[in-house]
Amino acid sequence: MELAQFEDLLMQANFEQLTVLCHEHNIVDIAEYVESLDISQIVYLFKHFDLQYLGELFSYLSLNTRNRIKDLLTSKELSDLLDHVYTDDVIEFISQLPLTNVKEILSFTELERRKQIYELLGYPKYSAGSIMSKDYIEMGKYINVLNAAQVIKEHEGLAEFMDIYYITDRDGILEGIVSVRDILFAPDLELLENIMTTDVISVNAFDHQEDVAKEFSKYDFSFLPVVDNINRLVGLLSADDIIDVVEDEATEDIHKMGGISWIKGGYLDTPAKLIATKRVGWLLILTVAYTISSWIITGYDDLLTALPSLMIFVPLLMDTAGDAGSQSLAMVVRGIAVDKVDKTFYKQVLYKEFGVSLIAGAFLFAGNFIRIMFFSINAGDAPLAFVVSLTVFFVVIISKIIGGLLPLVALSFNQDPAVMASPLITTISDSISLIIYFTLATLILGGSI
Amino acid sequence: MELAQFEDLLMQANFEQLTVLCHEHNIVDIAEYVESLDISQIVYLFKHFDLQYLGELFSYLSLNTRNRIKDLLTSKELSDLLDHVYTDDVIEFISQLPLTNVKEILSFTELERRKQIYELLGYPKYSAGSIMSKDYIEMGKYINVLNAAQVIKEHEGLAEFMDIYYITDRDGILEGIVSVRDILFAPDLELLENIMTTDVISVNAFDHQEDVAKEFSKYDFSFLPVVDNINRLVGLLSADDIIDVVEDEATEDIHKMGGISWIKGGYLDTPAKLIATKRVGWLLILTVAYTISSWIITGYDDLLTALPSLMIFVPLLMDTAGDAGSQSLAMVVRGIAVDKVDKTFYKQVLYKEFGVSLIAGAFLFAGNFIRIMFFSINAGDAPLAFVVSLTVFFVVIISKIIGGLLPLVALSFNQDPAVMASPLITTISDSISLIIYFTLATLILGGSI
Repeated sequence: MELAQFEDLLMQANFEQLTVLCHEHNIVDIAEYVESLDISQIVYLFKHFDLQYLGELFSYLSLNTRNRIKDLLTSKELSDLLDHVYTDDVIEFISQLPLTNVKEILSFTELERRKQIYELLGYPKYSAGSIMSKDYIEMGKYINVLNAAQVIKEHEGLAEFMDIYYITDRDGILEGIVSVRDILFAPDLELLENIMTTDVISVNAFDHQEDVAKEFSKYDFSFLPVVDNINRLVGLLSADDIIDVVEDEATEDIHKMGGISWIKGGYLDTPAKLIATKRVGWLLILTVAYTISSWIITGYDDLLTALPSLMIFVPLLMDTAGDAGSQSLAMVVRGIAVDKVDKTFYKQVLYKEFGVSLIAGAFLFAGNFIRIMFFSINAGDAPLAFVVSLTVFFVVIISKIIGGLLPLVALSFNQDPAVMASPLITTISDSISLIIYFTLATLILGGSI
Repeated sequence: MELAQFEDLLMQANFEQLTVLCHEHNIVDIAEYVESLDISQIVYLFKHFDLQYLGELFSYLSLNTRNRIKDLLTSKELSDLLDHVYTDDVIEFISQLPLTNVKEILSFTELERRKQIYELLGYPKYSAGSIMSKDYIEMGKYINVLNAAQVIKEHEGLAEFMDIYYITDRDGILEGIVSVRDILFAPDLELLENIMTTDVISVNAFDHQEDVAKEFSKYDFSFLPVVDNINRLVGLLSADDIIDVVEDEATEDIHKMGGISWIKGGYLDTPAKLIATKRVGWLLILTVAYTISSWIITGYDDLLTALPSLMIFVPLLMDTAGDAGSQSLAMVVRGIAVDKVDKTFYKQVLYKEFGVSLIAGAFLFAGNFIRIMFFSINAGDAPLAFVVSLTVFFVVIISKIIGGLLPLVALSFNQDPAVMASPLITTISDSISLIIYFTLATLILGGSI
């Protein structure tokens, strides 16, 4: 059946055919279609269709649509719906609601699930616990393969993860894993104890999601169990959850390096007012910081009056400094995020940036000298060309070393390295480049004043 | 057994106990340990241990170690080893070798596999085909559950992906999927035709890996089959492969926005000389671009001679312009990478950036006016404070709009939006801010010349 028939079937309340239609299409595509319906139609669907299907569908709708559905259902209806939504998606949804609202919704939920949800709500932001799922299958090691298959069958459609099962003892301590293939090939009466794998890699519920992503990357796992401090199984993470984490963390770094506080949620969905508040803070701080550059220029008033052509090269020097520093900063911030770089790497980064900057600086010295000597309005003024080019050389070296080390300094103070953003490195290296420039100019061209 | 016993067991050539040890630890940890051994010991291991295990271990070693192993094995030994490495990892390894070397190594490989490898080598860089795996299980729909279980058992240890099986017709056209659970619960003599799912989402082998990552994100899949243009199954991608893609793409964006050509491979492993060449190009191009700023300043020589204090605010204006533009650029580039923003979004971006910049500009106008009027060496000079602050206001609006639209312009010309990097936006907005500044100064302060 065509997706376009959905609306007609819904209006005719032909839920039998609607069920057929829904099973012929991927639920993500159904969700995309539902988004295009009238809110009254959507609510009608959510009041009358199969709750198990709606529970999954709900997770794929936009936050905006989910909130509108919430407003138009009774608390009881909403609670029944959420009982059919996977726990990690319930958490994502209710985290953004006012607490009184959450309490009201959860008051209809059965005790066991309510406890689970409050447990998940208790994990710190960006921890493994805050994004993990509770919908996995847990078994004891003393049941046999036949019973295990029975357990799996009973969970069909209820558990989110169905290909690996977790073996825990009476206290919930993780003892091993069994795959559906192990169960397929083992004799019916074999105990899980004898077929389970005991060498299980797990992550702690309080680990930061960024560290968890590194574990996934390192071991190439599709799933990782999440345990608490005494190795009790508390949840499960899958590689597709981690894709979202990696994307969010990269977005956060990119935004911070661009001098914006991170905004979760898409660019298009975020109102201009919110974006402005996230950006204007940095710009205002920098306004004050730039005062420093102004002071430096004012301090060399006499020199500039005597040699006004010096001023022409100020933009070049400032921008070169900023760009050279940003390049190093970008590489080291990313090295920290996905590579092994940490706060003990001062020496390695220093050597690397010094090496890089010597080479880059030499090229830029030559490039600038040639440009000024032959292709500028100051053509032929060798001393001036030499002063500017030599400044570029030193500025590149110093900016690159500062740009490389700043993120490590931030890490040493337990700050986010990405916050040591391009704007900050620009300010610092601007000041230094102006001082070097005017000092060299005084030393080398001073005689001509 | 402790991992530390590995070296002793290897030296005693006690491969039986070594096998036990290897199976007690995760292979990624074994690989990390092996990296710490002498290269002679590593080569001894690779000449004498179980090829199937070595084949997997090889994939987890650093590129450096893998190349050293390659140099010390005979072509025949290397070929035998690679026959036990998953095809996607073989591709990753041999892609970096000289072609003559590749031909020599592959000359020992059996025809079927050699064809597969050359097929994979033929896909464009960064396409789904270039990163997919060939190690999945394919079946016909007319076999029954019992036979299917047999096929799965035969592939144990040989196939990389074992939880979902692909149903293809005689021409290799993808018809459906069957999960190991379907097989576990279906009657022995049921045909796969009756239990397979036919609504299969797939990606094309020529799709860019970034688009494939978006599909994974959208559908929350753990695996996606890869097909060619006529829907023949040609490979398989898993979510953990995509984690690497998402990380690499984000790194690429961050590097490009920092004005560096992207370097695959870690920051620490890349030699300074290579990093320098990736960075110096941009800096040299920009050196020429900055000439424009110099020209503009030179053009207003008379104004600057009459009002030398104007020059003090040039760094402030230039940096504000650059930073304001970079912020917008960062958000839009990221919006393109992970959100729905594409080249048709000119109007939405224009409206959003105009809204944001009006608010941000107004705050910065006020902030700068107060700072200059009360806290600077030009305190009390209201006309000057007004000119500078008004320039800031306009500069923020224009830079943000340009910063927001540049990535879309790049997309319209099929260029990478991240390349329209911070350095470029800096140059453009610098020039514009200088022109606005000097024009406003002439209009408002001109009378005092």
